[in-house]
Amino acid sequence: MSKLVECVPNFSEGRRPEVIEAIAEEIRKIPHVKLLDVKSDPSHNRVVMTFVGEPQSVKLAAFNSCKKAAELIDMEKHHGEHPRIGATDVIPFIPVKNISMEECVQLADELAQDIAAKLDIPVYLYEEAAKIPARKALPHIRKGQFEGLKCEIDKPERCPDYGPARMHPTAGATVVGARQFLIAYNINLDTSDVQIAKKIANCIREAKGGYKYVRAMGVSVRMGDRDVAQVTINMVDYQGTPLFRVFETVKSEAARYGVNVIGSEIVGLTPMQALLDVAEFYLRLDGFDRKMVLEDNL
Amino acid sequence: MSKLVECVPNFSEGRRPEVIEAIAEEIRKIPHVKLLDVKSDPSHNRVVMTFVGEPQSVKLAAFNSCKKAAELIDMEKHHGEHPRIGATDVIPFIPVKNISMEECVQLADELAQDIAAKLDIPVYLYEEAAKIPARKALPHIRKGQFEGLKCEIDKPERCPDYGPARMHPTAGATVVGARQFLIAYNINLDTSDVQIAKKIANCIREAKGGYKYVRAMGVSVRMGDRDVAQVTINMVDYQGTPLFRVFETVKSEAARYGVNVIGSEIVGLTPMQALLDVAEFYLRLDGFDRKMVLEDNL
Repeated sequence: MSKLVECVPNFSEGRRPEVIEAIAEEIRKIPHVKLLDVKSDPSHNRVVMTFVGEPQSVKLAAFNSCKKAAELIDMEKHHGEHPRIGATDVIPFIPVKNISMEECVQLADELAQDIAAKLDIPVYLYEEAAKIPARKALPHIRKGQFEGLKCEIDKPERCPDYGPARMHPTAGATVVGARQFLIAYNINLDTSDVQIAKKIANCIREAKGGYKYVRAMGVSVRMGDRDVAQVTINMVDYQGTPLFRVFETVKSEAARYGVNVIGSEIVGLTPMQALLDVAEFYLRLDGFDRKMVLEDNL
Repeated sequence: MSKLVECVPNFSEGRRPEVIEAIAEEIRKIPHVKLLDVKSDPSHNRVVMTFVGEPQSVKLAAFNSCKKAAELIDMEKHHGEHPRIGATDVIPFIPVKNISMEECVQLADELAQDIAAKLDIPVYLYEEAAKIPARKALPHIRKGQFEGLKCEIDKPERCPDYGPARMHPTAGATVVGARQFLIAYNINLDTSDVQIAKKIANCIREAKGGYKYVRAMGVSVRMGDRDVAQVTINMVDYQGTPLFRVFETVKSEAARYGVNVIGSEIVGLTPMQALLDVAEFYLRLDGFDRKMVLEDNL
């Protein structure tokens, strides 16, 4: 069974289509890699590219795109709403199929060393790949952004994991790491009262005593001709905190206010396993195995 | 996207391993075909082979295995508990991916003509491929079995859809058709009272006013050190009658007797879609699409 890893680098360019295209082309031209999505935001002045493939090919595509971004983006001239420290701001690897988190951490470490050695860019390791516990959190590494880090990078506590203790003159610094697949998941309520959505979000989010791998907010969204209160969720580890458990808790908390769940939605992509876990839970399946899925035998 | 069809021929040989192997080899040696399972039963004196692949390759593998069975099996000498009319008793095609039922019916029709013309075997079309409505049901075609059909095949009402109106001297006759994927699904109850399982089975099976695509029985199974009442189900069209609906009805009918559902199990294989439909139902997913599943983008 071939190994499949996802990579979702964020580059500090959301306005010049020719630069975005040149970076994307570096990914597209690597065999055994598939570029799934390119999403740019002009106000953030940032682009997110999603690609998958065999681990070493994905690593090569990540390196080449990072090299191209260093050539075409000058952080001294970059402005945008989103926090950033480099031309290639952050590169996470995500296990998809037949690959462990440990292997993704290893892949991140190899890429970090390559970027430092061959491109002379300081590199920090984050999330599961972090060598320094405080660096698990991306905001910690990105504190002060490009401009702030430039002044502090030679301090011991801000020294990069690999590469020089000074910013690359145009490309700045880069963060590389490994994390679980993030599922963007919204649950819509049969009320326009956003306060109820906010209260429910607080029941499920880690920061307020909820589930460890849940980030959530209550918001109001326009659906057709009415306002709907929505619990908008980032499931940062669908194996650690499964979708069905969050859904059931939201349903139960909503009932406390006499409110029904009218539906839920997955935004973007989800790994198959996250949905199979839902089916397994509700059908109370005994002895279920992916080998029972016809398509997984092919 | 490549088309994927499943084929599950039943051959009248469950005792001589060298004959079973020779037939299986005819399937294995066709490129773009994967033999997933070979299940023989000596008391039935019958073997069921499951393979998948690209439609024309699957048709060729079905034809070649049928030809080999005609060479190696003599129906005049065949005895077994399972009803049968030929060396290759029945060949169903099942749509798996990117292929419609209509295309499977067409494939069945082509194979039936090939078998009749090239092997001189009378062929009947059944299920979705039936040209005569009464022949939708396999038992209707198989009435009287090999021995009985031999005496009646020249009667107008028993005349084959393709090929001679007389049995092949050794291979008998063959049934070819197209049907939906059949999911074997069991639901276990928190009681040893098999009468409750029988009553619930009657609530869900078509024959007793239940769901159109459900065949069900109540049985008693041994689990560890206790007897468990089980509703054992054949879901003959999981798109027409979905798993979750049957599960919820069984749960609700069991509650009427104060009994809980302790679990359910899928026996053998299921198409991925059947489980995704379960997740979609319970999470009340809006706007869900297979394109949202990461693996389906690859």
